[in-house]
Amino acid sequence: MRAKIDDVAKLAGVSKTTVSRVMNKRGYLSDKTIKKVHDAMEELNYRPNVVARQLFKQETKLVGLIFPTVDNPFFGQLIASMEKILFKNGFKTLIGNSMNDSEKEKKYLRDLMAHQVDGLIVGAHNQGISEYDNANLPIVSIDRIVNDDIPVISSDNYQGGILATKLLIDNNCKVIIHTNGPQELKTPAQNRRLAYEKTMRENGLKPIVYTLDFNIGYDQKDRFFRNIFKEHPNVDGMFLSNDMDAAQVRDIASELGYQIPNDLKIVGYDGADTTRILLPDLTTIVQPIDKMAEEAVKMLIERMIDNGAGRDKVIPVKLHRGKTV
Amino acid sequence: MRAKIDDVAKLAGVSKTTVSRVMNKRGYLSDKTIKKVHDAMEELNYRPNVVARQLFKQETKLVGLIFPTVDNPFFGQLIASMEKILFKNGFKTLIGNSMNDSEKEKKYLRDLMAHQVDGLIVGAHNQGISEYDNANLPIVSIDRIVNDDIPVISSDNYQGGILATKLLIDNNCKVIIHTNGPQELKTPAQNRRLAYEKTMRENGLKPIVYTLDFNIGYDQKDRFFRNIFKEHPNVDGMFLSNDMDAAQVRDIASELGYQIPNDLKIVGYDGADTTRILLPDLTTIVQPIDKMAEEAVKMLIERMIDNGAGRDKVIPVKLHRGKTV
Repeated sequence: MRAKIDDVAKLAGVSKTTVSRVMNKRGYLSDKTIKKVHDAMEELNYRPNVVARQLFKQETKLVGLIFPTVDNPFFGQLIASMEKILFKNGFKTLIGNSMNDSEKEKKYLRDLMAHQVDGLIVGAHNQGISEYDNANLPIVSIDRIVNDDIPVISSDNYQGGILATKLLIDNNCKVIIHTNGPQELKTPAQNRRLAYEKTMRENGLKPIVYTLDFNIGYDQKDRFFRNIFKEHPNVDGMFLSNDMDAAQVRDIASELGYQIPNDLKIVGYDGADTTRILLPDLTTIVQPIDKMAEEAVKMLIERMIDNGAGRDKVIPVKLHRGKTV
Repeated sequence: MRAKIDDVAKLAGVSKTTVSRVMNKRGYLSDKTIKKVHDAMEELNYRPNVVARQLFKQETKLVGLIFPTVDNPFFGQLIASMEKILFKNGFKTLIGNSMNDSEKEKKYLRDLMAHQVDGLIVGAHNQGISEYDNANLPIVSIDRIVNDDIPVISSDNYQGGILATKLLIDNNCKVIIHTNGPQELKTPAQNRRLAYEKTMRENGLKPIVYTLDFNIGYDQKDRFFRNIFKEHPNVDGMFLSNDMDAAQVRDIASELGYQIPNDLKIVGYDGADTTRILLPDLTTIVQPIDKMAEEAVKMLIERMIDNGAGRDKVIPVKLHRGKTV
């Protein structure tokens, strides 16, 4: 289904050699010819395949990273770690912080492809961006299911869900609330919810799940969490979707008069180095962030050589026992 | 002093027109000619000036950010904020995390110039990188003095130093220790030290300054801070160079038996949003991070139009009163 160089030549009304020369920026070419070929490439969404790009010496040595933001301990460490490994492998890193804006993510994709990046690592939180399906570029995803062709690196969210839920149950919590991202967002993090629900039911407890968007602001989250305490004043355990949310819940709960960990036990998620330094007391599930970064870059480089390479990879997590459980 | 297109033509043994065509990637050119011109450009460290670049339509719409790391609440917020504003202005962001590695910073500079970025915003912590002097690119710096030509955006470090030191003195601290970066590293942050020393002396107290490198690891910092407590067991106030260090000192001090804030009062620096969420109890000086990002991008865009534009800019700070003082 993917457009071939012949299709571009045909649509542009030029020879295959001319298309090659345009892509290769070699030999004399009129502006008109260049435009015709570029227009045809765009219309057909044509991207030279890896081998062709190597032949044309079109490697840019640029890799694009599309993630919600660098301004978060988890993504900051992940992106810093990937940048370091990419640099060692001779690549420069372009970043796009798409937050919850799917239009922005689409624009990043188009722009990064226009800059002819050699590959992309993506972990933004938007669903249904069809541009990925015919990007014809080596792409690897972290913590996000994009489409069947793109391999996903993630930590073992199911194991994390079991560890957190069991810890709360073993510490006598009965009313345990779990927060997670919207279910329509296909991420491996949904496996935490499945593990939580299963573990709760196995122990004769009722699962209570609230969904919230990672990307909403602090004030909106404040209202969201206060509402949980209003709806479930008897809550005695909380398993949050990330450490920033856990810190915010801790402060709201203290303000509402809950003693932590006596009245309410809290488990966070992510365990980034920064969070561990700022807030060592938080009990949390530690994702192997540097390892995830390493695996993602490794797989991307494999896919630059063979775009069919790479299978989903799941890396174990660990429990960090602070003082909130 | 800067190389001109004539110099390049002369050294390469070609006409000025040929040099233009190489830069412009236009018209037929042999590999040999391209190489000769590129070699001459490199040898002379020639970069087309802004006007020439616009004439040659060589705008890449890429801006490079060279900072120690994105994996830190201050730099994470600063870089996320700049990326957002750059994106709004049609620029893509290349990042280089140089940490304390000046070779890496030099390589970033060379690579980013090779990718012909339209400009750079820099705040890495290395001194004496002469490549900046003849980069011939629009450059703006944040919190770092590079050379006389490059304007510096910073928060009011002197004011921050006074606020922090006065707060500790007003709360009856007598043995107040300040940490700062190495003095040979020319940064506006040295003004905090000057303000601290002046305020201490005005109050009849002896300044005690320890210098440490931002970029050293957690374990090395651990030894460094423990040594401070060994050398000054009677310390009752600490004014640290950033919030991460303040958090680490708080934990070490607690472990050593100091009650905070009774025995020891702590003031951090930076006050990034992430830190304020994770560690609201920390008393700290809040830098106007988003404002600094905005001013830096604004000034860079001004310099893209007129590379002489832009003067040093200092933005006021605020005190956040937590529970550590």
